[in-house]
Amino acid sequence: MNEQIAKKVAEMESELVAIRRDIHRHAETAWLEFRTASLVVKKLQALGFAVSYGPEVIKEEAMMGVPAPEVVAKAQQRALEQGADPEIVKAMAGGKTGVVATFDSGKPGPVVGFRFDMDANDLTEAQDVKHRPFREGFASINAGAMHGCGHDAHTSIGLGLAAVISQIKDELRGKVKLVFQSAEEGARGAKSMAEAGVVDDVDYMIGIHVGLSRQKVGQVVCGAGAEGFPASTKLDVTFSGASAHAGGAPETGRNTILAATAAIQNLYAISRHSKGLTRVNVGTIQGGSGRNVIPAYVHLRLETRGADWELNEYMRERAYQIIAGAADMYGVDFTTTLMGEIIGGVPSRPLAEKIAEIAQTIPEITEPEALGPFAYGGSEDYTYFMDRVQQLGGQATCIVLGTELSAVHHNPYFDINEDVLPLGVKLLGESALKLTTTMPTIR
Amino acid sequence: MNEQIAKKVAEMESELVAIRRDIHRHAETAWLEFRTASLVVKKLQALGFAVSYGPEVIKEEAMMGVPAPEVVAKAQQRALEQGADPEIVKAMAGGKTGVVATFDSGKPGPVVGFRFDMDANDLTEAQDVKHRPFREGFASINAGAMHGCGHDAHTSIGLGLAAVISQIKDELRGKVKLVFQSAEEGARGAKSMAEAGVVDDVDYMIGIHVGLSRQKVGQVVCGAGAEGFPASTKLDVTFSGASAHAGGAPETGRNTILAATAAIQNLYAISRHSKGLTRVNVGTIQGGSGRNVIPAYVHLRLETRGADWELNEYMRERAYQIIAGAADMYGVDFTTTLMGEIIGGVPSRPLAEKIAEIAQTIPEITEPEALGPFAYGGSEDYTYFMDRVQQLGGQATCIVLGTELSAVHHNPYFDINEDVLPLGVKLLGESALKLTTTMPTIR
Amino acid sequence: MNEQIAKKVAEMESELVAIRRDIHRHAETAWLEFRTASLVVKKLQALGFAVSYGPEVIKEEAMMGVPAPEVVAKAQQRALEQGADPEIVKAMAGGKTGVVATFDSGKPGPVVGFRFDMDANDLTEAQDVKHRPFREGFASINAGAMHGCGHDAHTSIGLGLAAVISQIKDELRGKVKLVFQSAEEGARGAKSMAEAGVVDDVDYMIGIHVGLSRQKVGQVVCGAGAEGFPASTKLDVTFSGASAHAGGAPETGRNTILAATAAIQNLYAISRHSKGLTRVNVGTIQGGSGRNVIPAYVHLRLETRGADWELNEYMRERAYQIIAGAADMYGVDFTTTLMGEIIGGVPSRPLAEKIAEIAQTIPEITEPEALGPFAYGGSEDYTYFMDRVQQLGGQATCIVLGTELSAVHHNPYFDINEDVLPLGVKLLGESALKLTTTMPTIR
Amino acid sequence: MNEQIAKKVAEMESELVAIRRDIHRHAETAWLEFRTASLVVKKLQALGFAVSYGPEVIKEEAMMGVPAPEVVAKAQQRALEQGADPEIVKAMAGGKTGVVATFDSGKPGPVVGFRFDMDANDLTEAQDVKHRPFREGFASINAGAMHGCGHDAHTSIGLGLAAVISQIKDELRGKVKLVFQSAEEGARGAKSMAEAGVVDDVDYMIGIHVGLSRQKVGQVVCGAGAEGFPASTKLDVTFSGASAHAGGAPETGRNTILAATAAIQNLYAISRHSKGLTRVNVGTIQGGSGRNVIPAYVHLRLETRGADWELNEYMRERAYQIIAGAADMYGVDFTTTLMGEIIGGVPSRPLAEKIAEIAQTIPEITEPEALGPFAYGGSEDYTYFMDRVQQLGGQATCIVLGTELSAVHHNPYFDINEDVLPLGVKLLGESALKLTTTMPTIR
Repeated sequence: MNEQIAKKVAEMESELVAIRRDIHRHAETAWLEFRTASLVVKKLQALGFAVSYGPEVIKEEAMMGVPAPEVVAKAQQRALEQGADPEIVKAMAGGKTGVVATFDSGKPGPVVGFRFDMDANDLTEAQDVKHRPFREGFASINAGAMHGCGHDAHTSIGLGLAAVISQIKDELRGKVKLVFQSAEEGARGAKSMAEAGVVDDVDYMIGIHVGLSRQKVGQVVCGAGAEGFPASTKLDVTFSGASAHAGGAPETGRNTILAATAAIQNLYAISRHSKGLTRVNVGTIQGGSGRNVIPAYVHLRLETRGADWELNEYMRERAYQIIAGAADMYGVDFTTTLMGEIIGGVPSRPLAEKIAEIAQTIPEITEPEALGPFAYGGSEDYTYFMDRVQQLGGQATCIVLGTELSAVHHNPYFDINEDVLPLGVKLLGESALKLTTTMPTIR
Repeated sequence: MNEQIAKKVAEMESELVAIRRDIHRHAETAWLEFRTASLVVKKLQALGFAVSYGPEVIKEEAMMGVPAPEVVAKAQQRALEQGADPEIVKAMAGGKTGVVATFDSGKPGPVVGFRFDMDANDLTEAQDVKHRPFREGFASINAGAMHGCGHDAHTSIGLGLAAVISQIKDELRGKVKLVFQSAEEGARGAKSMAEAGVVDDVDYMIGIHVGLSRQKVGQVVCGAGAEGFPASTKLDVTFSGASAHAGGAPETGRNTILAATAAIQNLYAISRHSKGLTRVNVGTIQGGSGRNVIPAYVHLRLETRGADWELNEYMRERAYQIIAGAADMYGVDFTTTLMGEIIGGVPSRPLAEKIAEIAQTIPEITEPEALGPFAYGGSEDYTYFMDRVQQLGGQATCIVLGTELSAVHHNPYFDINEDVLPLGVKLLGESALKLTTTMPTIR
Repeated sequence: MNEQIAKKVAEMESELVAIRRDIHRHAETAWLEFRTASLVVKKLQALGFAVSYGPEVIKEEAMMGVPAPEVVAKAQQRALEQGADPEIVKAMAGGKTGVVATFDSGKPGPVVGFRFDMDANDLTEAQDVKHRPFREGFASINAGAMHGCGHDAHTSIGLGLAAVISQIKDELRGKVKLVFQSAEEGARGAKSMAEAGVVDDVDYMIGIHVGLSRQKVGQVVCGAGAEGFPASTKLDVTFSGASAHAGGAPETGRNTILAATAAIQNLYAISRHSKGLTRVNVGTIQGGSGRNVIPAYVHLRLETRGADWELNEYMRERAYQIIAGAADMYGVDFTTTLMGEIIGGVPSRPLAEKIAEIAQTIPEITEPEALGPFAYGGSEDYTYFMDRVQQLGGQATCIVLGTELSAVHHNPYFDINEDVLPLGVKLLGESALKLTTTMPTIR
Repeated sequence: MNEQIAKKVAEMESELVAIRRDIHRHAETAWLEFRTASLVVKKLQALGFAVSYGPEVIKEEAMMGVPAPEVVAKAQQRALEQGADPEIVKAMAGGKTGVVATFDSGKPGPVVGFRFDMDANDLTEAQDVKHRPFREGFASINAGAMHGCGHDAHTSIGLGLAAVISQIKDELRGKVKLVFQSAEEGARGAKSMAEAGVVDDVDYMIGIHVGLSRQKVGQVVCGAGAEGFPASTKLDVTFSGASAHAGGAPETGRNTILAATAAIQNLYAISRHSKGLTRVNVGTIQGGSGRNVIPAYVHLRLETRGADWELNEYMRERAYQIIAGAADMYGVDFTTTLMGEIIGGVPSRPLAEKIAEIAQTIPEITEPEALGPFAYGGSEDYTYFMDRVQQLGGQATCIVLGTELSAVHHNPYFDINEDVLPLGVKLLGESALKLTTTMPTIR
């Protein structure tokens, strides 16, 4: 591998850890990554990148599941208190926390894109001496927000990559684009950035994730999700009817619990599909006001999945049909809110194989694989970027960077082996170099 | 009581039995009463009544649940073979078997109407020596048709009444109308005769039924159904979807069994009503073509009931709403066919009390009651006549003539105590006399 | 009416209002009426009654819907802070807040019982100048507890009656029993006092309620619920299954939302009953943990009703059968908790008529009625006392004391016309006098 | 290819057609193949095979979906009238119509087995001059029975193979076993013969089917079902409750239509499985007796499927659990009858490839394939033999012999191109020769 990269990464090791821990400590959930994004902007600007953020890189109509304005305002306030730059936070009003940095070599060559997600989970971190982040003082100080999925590591690797790019800038050709994404959790953010066009000029696109299907530092899957990332739709449904005294005048009510149960039973009865796997789940239900009152509202949170977008579309359309029919049965109204959506897809095999070749040149990567799973049954809204690039003729892949874990993802005791940070920076830096210098422009 | 009536009835006793047994032996089911109606017409004409039948007394659009044309044709053929008059049968084409006879005294006075139903049940009579009709040779010779509800007795009483009217014609005032109705079973016929206007000039209307809530000859309820005849709607529903191989391409089917089950579960869940009793029943279901085929059709036979017409309407409308919603859920088509409908109602109390007075003058009536039940939970499409007369300002009631029974109604071993025949003729004859001569015209 | 009673009530008028307002201001919900009961005990003792309370008058096994121990402890603490007697509160440990006072004349004569309920509703009172209790400073200071059903007035009337009894003690015969009941709301308390035997020696039993079917002071129904109080069962159901990732391994979950929907749909489909009205309602549902997780628990709050106890029992038993079957379908566990139960019943007509006679002697009662409704479709757990007395051969009735209302019952703006207080005391005082002195012992 | 085989087949061509047409004309449905099996026994005996049939080759406990005794008796009678051998028919009492013939070369070598199914479909053949079998006089004379799936061709090929074996007996080594199976339709017969042990000594097992995934004579798939034959369970379910008058006393009924709908809705809601495809279908439903009667019985015909036996078992067990739960909900009884079961499986690839090699030596086979589909989504109860042989260490495969069709399988106009008959005999004859002489004994 390139010596400059190796040297730069060696110098940065403790900084990578420090960045990761700082972000971990100040965890911010989806659409509220004001401090994190502010930090990212500042560092990228310092390294000389052209940086865009806020409305330029996020299409408002495609943002899904944005918290209520008062929640956003509170998060902005907290970010400022925790050191965010006021100007940047202001520019990200409404939760537009995405950041895109571009390095242009000025020389011909392809555009290579990388995507890093920045948001934390809706979790409260374990305050327990058995848990290293707590023991070593970098557990999240923000209640209800915790990096339980490794996006703190992703962001740290992304900033490390930026430093490497800056270091080797004379050797590079073409362009390098770094996309720091908002709101991956709940599959809410990628669509709004992809539809804003931030990867429309990318020839080779790379996403990363730590852990998941490989739980040892040194294991790397270069074409993760080779068996296909499932597509999915996240939907909130509210039925609104009319309450009535259940003893005295039940017939005057319009019963939403009955409408909801009719919907649920028939949602699960949507026919299996001969072309591949489908899923539906009504994960939560909440409704009614009192034991002796005909219930006037019910709220459901549900999701559909399909092995690909077409199969998910089948499920989603059948779901709408059933929900509407159930509401009609009981003369109740309903609203559906799209809370998230994942397009699914399959990584580009040639790119995965190329990166596997590159991986073999990095000593720390002891078990490189070209193709493999992402997570078992898991999904990623990175697929919006992957799909966009592939649709426009480019290639895209997703890399799993193996790491030991202290607990499963989304658990209050989640922690990683930080050795994955320098390893990740090396692989991405080397990829940026090799792809821009040896691969053709394909768009 | 009037001596002439008593004398005439005494003379007729064996004839009443003979008529009842002849009709019993040649039982004809709903809309197919060609031989019975032909017999009725001939006898009424012989007694000097003005007789109308066929399309004049039946409104075609209001006929419900008429058998298929080939079934009607076959029944006509059988009636001819069993002695029906060809001209009359021809005039009753399409099942229009109703008969209305009018006696006009030429003197002022009210119009008194009587209704007798003529159809048998869809039953095959017990061929068993324990069963008197079989033992004595008057069991039904028509398979699948049996007088298991006493309409043979009703028709016999009606013809007996006609003879009495003829006998006492000089004593009468006003008019007497005798309505011989088709298709009471399944609540299919009364509406078509009532809507044809056959009772529109009636001041006092009387219907009868043997047995039911009183099972001893001598017991008579003059205002039966005093607690209210329930209203009811009989509906056939067919769901039509699309078949598909259940293993190979289930998603291409449109599953009618699932649509039907969604409908059924929610039909039974229609809210109870605070204003009174409601019912719904899906009595039969039949659907699908093969175990491994997504079922493309389902046929349901169902009914709704309500303590009164408004409550039944609530049930019926909710039922339509649910059936439509269930069909929409599964993208299947559906048709509903109204197979019968009963309007329900409450007898006119003054008329019931007047007849109870009359009943007290008849020695055979040992236990006269003014008001009482009809059958427990039972319904009668006679209520269409009752409602029509009451709507137009007249009075109407229904009389239960108690009789011992060998088995419950609608049972293959059903038989009555024929002593109810002369008793019934006496009460109706006396009522015709008293009502036309002592009561005012009220319309 | 008795002059002494009239005079005593006239003297007490402002005190009745003061007591009502004090109780209103310190509203305590079901099983937590420590301060209220302490006040009641002290006043009754001061008037010379033999007073029992706590475990003596409450059968622990029959207490339903008792709050969690920590809630009870907190309420005890608050009661002490708000002036309750520590000894009495201690004796009522665990929520046994019922009080029974007996006056024994020493002379032969019947036992006349009265019941007053003391608990407030789970409501937060309107803090609004339009609302008199707030404007005049007696709105509840206990958040989440408000007298929105008039039990503050009932308790005040009860204490007024006690003062009258004390005043006219020489004129009385037999015994008078005053039952101050806990936890009427949710139908949770009467059973535990009735089963403790507190009314087992009562010949004539009277319960009261302000407002409801009569909304003018001066209107009184002496045999309220003459059409029958419905019986009812209040049930909480929790289904417990197993969660699983809805995408990755759905088959390993045991889905409680599906079990609950199967239960609900079939609960509403329990057959109507030919003997009278029945009801079922699932008023609230809450379950599941996340959109993409097979839901491992669901909590339902439901109730059944029947025109009488037998009909309610039919509904309740069918409900258990359906819940168990639904759980079995999905291999999930379930628990049911009886949260309240009402036995229903019909007041004793002779007693109602006797009290109506007495009511006619009281000038303020301008519209006395012997028999009438209680509330339209409403229920009362006083029926446990009514049933117990009637079962043992006594007579029992329930009186509605009409009053103007500022809002419907159970509304944060509920308030009464306090003129009902002296009127109520007069009627009950006069009843105690007349019943003990002129009526026979009947047990 | 072997010249003797080619010559023998050339001589037999018209006889193969004649046998096929004779069997076609005397079509016999599952478990009733008395005449067909009698014909097979006689021909095999004449060719010198050791022939077993009846109870020796069929395990009674494993027979599924056997018609009622009177149906079997009638079929035996008809078979005798149509020329079956009385002794043989007698030995096959109860429907045990399976036949196994063995040729033992007396020389060492493997055992090669072949399976041919003999039963017709429950179809009435088109009586139409457009339909060749009718036009040329060999349409089925047995109403309700028609060879619409080509088993007549299979049997004819089997007898042709027997003649070839006899012809080349000196060249053969090891043993050849010919299994003529009863009741393939509905997946009812193979299990009973496999469990009787008839293929327990077989090293190489071959099944055949005409048409399906290849519709041209000359196309042959040697390892059909390479993507896996699904496993399946065919179940009949009867719910038995109690009828009642739906108006008068609905609560006394036990409603089987409600139990069935609860079962059906929840059957379709059985969770998808992460390990592969699953299916459930309720293909037919029939129940209830009258519109106004609480329905006392319902009959369902359903099936489950799974990509393999384990997945089908999951579906089947969940189905039982749901059916039982639904019955319990409504207090109704139920019975389930196993009507057929398919074990599923995958052909042995080495054997498929070996036969593909052999196929290349036969001039008429223009498009040989080693691996390919069986029918799209289809199943075969031959898999019981396949599984048994594979479990015991042998190899087994299934061959699709392409043929033009006049209509799809199971259609009243179904007919084949009879050129497939000699082609099939050649391929199987050649396989018998090559496998016994060149392949090792592997068991």
